[in-house]
Amino acid sequence: MTAATPAPRRAGRPPRSVLSRDRITAAALELVADTGYAGLTMSALARRLRVAPSALYNHAGSKQEVLGWIQEHVMTMVDFSAFAEEPWDEALRSWAWSYREVFARHTPLIPVIAVLPVTDAEKTLRMYEEVTLGLTRAGWPPERVVPVIVALESFVYGSALDVTAPGNIFDPGALADRFPAFTTAVRLAATPAADESPADIAFRTGLDGLIDGLRVQLGAWLQAEDGDR
Amino acid sequence: MTAATPAPRRAGRPPRSVLSRDRITAAALELVADTGYAGLTMSALARRLRVAPSALYNHAGSKQEVLGWIQEHVMTMVDFSAFAEEPWDEALRSWAWSYREVFARHTPLIPVIAVLPVTDAEKTLRMYEEVTLGLTRAGWPPERVVPVIVALESFVYGSALDVTAPGNIFDPGALADRFPAFTTAVRLAATPAADESPADIAFRTGLDGLIDGLRVQLGAWLQAEDGDR
Repeated sequence: MTAATPAPRRAGRPPRSVLSRDRITAAALELVADTGYAGLTMSALARRLRVAPSALYNHAGSKQEVLGWIQEHVMTMVDFSAFAEEPWDEALRSWAWSYREVFARHTPLIPVIAVLPVTDAEKTLRMYEEVTLGLTRAGWPPERVVPVIVALESFVYGSALDVTAPGNIFDPGALADRFPAFTTAVRLAATPAADESPADIAFRTGLDGLIDGLRVQLGAWLQAEDGDR
Repeated sequence: MTAATPAPRRAGRPPRSVLSRDRITAAALELVADTGYAGLTMSALARRLRVAPSALYNHAGSKQEVLGWIQEHVMTMVDFSAFAEEPWDEALRSWAWSYREVFARHTPLIPVIAVLPVTDAEKTLRMYEEVTLGLTRAGWPPERVVPVIVALESFVYGSALDVTAPGNIFDPGALADRFPAFTTAVRLAATPAADESPADIAFRTGLDGLIDGLRVQLGAWLQAEDGDR
């Protein structure tokens, strides 16, 4: 046996040496989960992948490109299939619950993805296309679709943060006596009569409210349109 | 003149040497704005204040305490005065617009404050007490108050992130032809006919919807209560 045989050479190599979009995306997700968005740099990502930065740049042109991959990866977990089958309000409800569920498991991504352009993000755009078709088939005017999507997403992102809030977030502590109405409200909201978590109750309250309210807006719009004929 | 005169000794000192809650809070806010939440550590805060960590700990017992001060400072900027004068739905609307405005200027705080307990936070608790009184005076059952507050805050936090989103966030780019319904919706939403920003239109759409929907819920509850009598 000589130093030229393959075995000794391989021993010093990282166990998986082939970079791919999937592997880079997985490592970037781990990095964001561990260190927050601020910790996601191309050099930190290369270290985690045990490759030289130049090797990483051969696959991913920029941090912005990696962020796009993360967005696509996470968005494929959101279930929007209801828009093909259900009435728009039921479809919006299912979509929102799934969307919140996915982002509650990826809260460090929320501030990033909430402001990340969807340009060229094929899977994300496919989701928006289906949502748009579902809403317009139901009579929503096309110019109202984006505001409805953004309003719903804003509620979903904030609610996904709330899922991770501690159970005692509203405990007034030593000041309870000075704020008796709120203290009572907090105590009653926490009674074990409810079989949902406080975060689920708040999400359902807001989502049902939002959808009821959007139904009112759509009804008013359809009536006005009828009047114009 | 000798080395014992005050002037040379003072020359080496930081210009402001007296720590106070206000000064620590202001420096902590700057630090979060510059480096995100991950950058807020007691040692980084001491460096920014140009004091030894031990001097900082004489005033602030922990990072958690500093976060509480930040929360109190930011919450005092949120205007909740409408709950004393206006009907609950108008008061909720004014509160939400003010709340979003404040957090749109402090987006790095959103993921922090969304999950920060309010225990012993006097000014924040005063706000929640007034909101609770406004809602219960209007007939909201006390056990529904906290879910309504959390739903509204979730929408506000997500919407504050959206204020900072780039104008072209929904631009499909080269994929426009493959997603024609969404592309049309995006184009129509961006028409200059609207004199509000896209973020304002989405916020108004969602907030009006949410409040309309909550009005429906309150009406149903009051009717059921009437039936019980």
